Amino acid sequence: MRCRTCRQKAVIEIERHNAAFCKECFLDYCRRQVERAITSLGMLTPTDRVLVGVSGGKDSLALWDILSGLGYDVDGLYLNLGIGAYSERSEAIATRFAADRGLKLHVVSVREEFGFGIPDGASVIARPTCSLCGTSKRHLLNKFAYDHGYDALATGHNLDDEAATLLSNLLHWQTEYLKRQWPVLPSAKGFAKKVKPLIRLAERETAAYCVLSGIEYVVEECPLVEGNTQLRYKEALDLLERRSPGTKAQLVLGFLKEGHSWFEREASGGSASDGALRLAECSICGSPTPGPSKQGGGTGPAGPQKADAPVCAFCRLSSRILERLEDKN
Amino acid sequence: MRCRTCRQKAVIEIERHNAAFCKECFLDYCRRQVERAITSLGMLTPTDRVLVGVSGGKDSLALWDILSGLGYDVDGLYLNLGIGAYSERSEAIATRFAADRGLKLHVVSVREEFGFGIPDGASVIARPTCSLCGTSKRHLLNKFAYDHGYDALATGHNLDDEAATLLSNLLHWQTEYLKRQWPVLPSAKGFAKKVKPLIRLAERETAAYCVLSGIEYVVEECPLVEGNTQLRYKEALDLLERRSPGTKAQLVLGFLKEGHSWFEREASGGSASDGALRLAECSICGSPTPGPSKQGGGTGPAGPQKADAPVCAFCRLSSRILERLEDKN
Repeated sequence: MRCRTCRQKAVIEIERHNAAFCKECFLDYCRRQVERAITSLGMLTPTDRVLVGVSGGKDSLALWDILSGLGYDVDGLYLNLGIGAYSERSEAIATRFAADRGLKLHVVSVREEFGFGIPDGASVIARPTCSLCGTSKRHLLNKFAYDHGYDALATGHNLDDEAATLLSNLLHWQTEYLKRQWPVLPSAKGFAKKVKPLIRLAERETAAYCVLSGIEYVVEECPLVEGNTQLRYKEALDLLERRSPGTKAQLVLGFLKEGHSWFEREASGGSASDGALRLAECSICGSPTPGPSKQGGGTGPAGPQKADAPVCAFCRLSSRILERLEDKN
Repeated sequence: MRCRTCRQKAVIEIERHNAAFCKECFLDYCRRQVERAITSLGMLTPTDRVLVGVSGGKDSLALWDILSGLGYDVDGLYLNLGIGAYSERSEAIATRFAADRGLKLHVVSVREEFGFGIPDGASVIARPTCSLCGTSKRHLLNKFAYDHGYDALATGHNLDDEAATLLSNLLHWQTEYLKRQWPVLPSAKGFAKKVKPLIRLAERETAAYCVLSGIEYVVEECPLVEGNTQLRYKEALDLLERRSPGTKAQLVLGFLKEGHSWFEREASGGSASDGALRLAECSICGSPTPGPSKQGGGTGPAGPQKADAPVCAFCRLSSRILERLEDKN
């Protein structure tokens, strides 16, 4: 097998492109795919200050490496979620990656900042670990990027991640999620701009990028991932991809090119929502959170109810977790 | 395990309904699902004369049995596609089914009527067998139902079939197909009304219906099915269904309830087609076929081209096949 670009001996085959590459041309292919995602979707401008959410895994480290190689001003944020030795090993790897390259890594320990780790937190409230973890990460990454004035928050979601989320949303006809599923979400009051520059690279490709460019990353999956439903959508898509290479790319890129626009259209019947969500400031952390609804409270025989001070989902969860943990001790 | 309805010993479990049934209650459940599909989607009126496309397999025989049990005036049409012993066995089974119940079965032999069987036909033109077979069946079933004045053509597509087609259309963003994917297609000039009353029953359930009600059916799959791409979508959905029973029903029923309406909306940009397809009559068989397009022929330097007499897809294919078969002999 020869490299498509330079005819040297190839080290990796990319079936969906019917192509093979040598090491150097493959790394270059990865950079070009990221560049193409960024420019074709208007993700970043050359002067943007970017924060990468770094987990220590292949995707986020490949992303950080590629973005900084492309000349972006890009720092990292590692969230230590308190998942025992796994979190410690991930933090060490992320720290070493940054130090070796002279890059700036912020580290936030959820336990030090909020008084609980994700597994302890999930165990005291009736909620799946992955769900609490997802809510916490989204909240904390956004808040850090926004509060520190970064122009954009970049996350390592790859083609496989996007395809799995899309498949799940389609199978369940989550049309509101489908409307909002887009790899660039603009900034707004309380929200950093969010971008997913790896959307054109498969999981296997970000792993190969790390291996071939000598990036050490956490290979094992999170030990708590067992209940994660996204894995089953990935499995189903893997099965289809093996039979028909390009299925995932067709799903995701076709959604970007055509599918998404269908879900953006206004409903012709009366079922459409009235557009933008009303947002208020969380009375604890200041983050945006859905405000009191128009229909809420006030028409019943008990008379108008006093509106509660708004509290965001993360602060609600963390207060509940802390209460329960205190009750336990 | 006890029957959900009568508490007798259950013989089958339907995981997505979290229910189990005894033989009689299961057969009744199947009938009620068909009735519900028919009434909720307005498929048939009680006086409709219905033609069922009968293959000799579990779906079409279960459908015929249920429809006639529900009191519909329903005949069958068996198309002998010339697939060797498989077609002969299927015809014998369909014929016996009809004779045993005093039902009327029409039989059309593709080889006798058109001079070729599907496998010979596919072998002389560069076209997958399943594609030629599908085109031929759709054409011949519709034409027979229309020409013989049936009010509706009912086919045995089950929940698994619809889910697989839907998944394939979604993965490839076939928005035109998604727009037209609906289990009731109204009659029009040249078109019989088409209905799919088994859309609420899984493949496993139509098989169980036949087994439990003593209907003999062709168990083996068509020997030419190997290249059929629909099977891989079924496999992917089976994997998801095992992990999360109800996935297929959610996909299909969610599409009927909400998803389809998104694809029916007019495009807001300039990419929408101008609505209804212009149809002409096939100059060979009289069936409707897309008419000459507005843009076709006439502006080039060679001057206006004479429009060819319209010929439908089936007649085009069958003329080509007959020419090639004659060349061979």
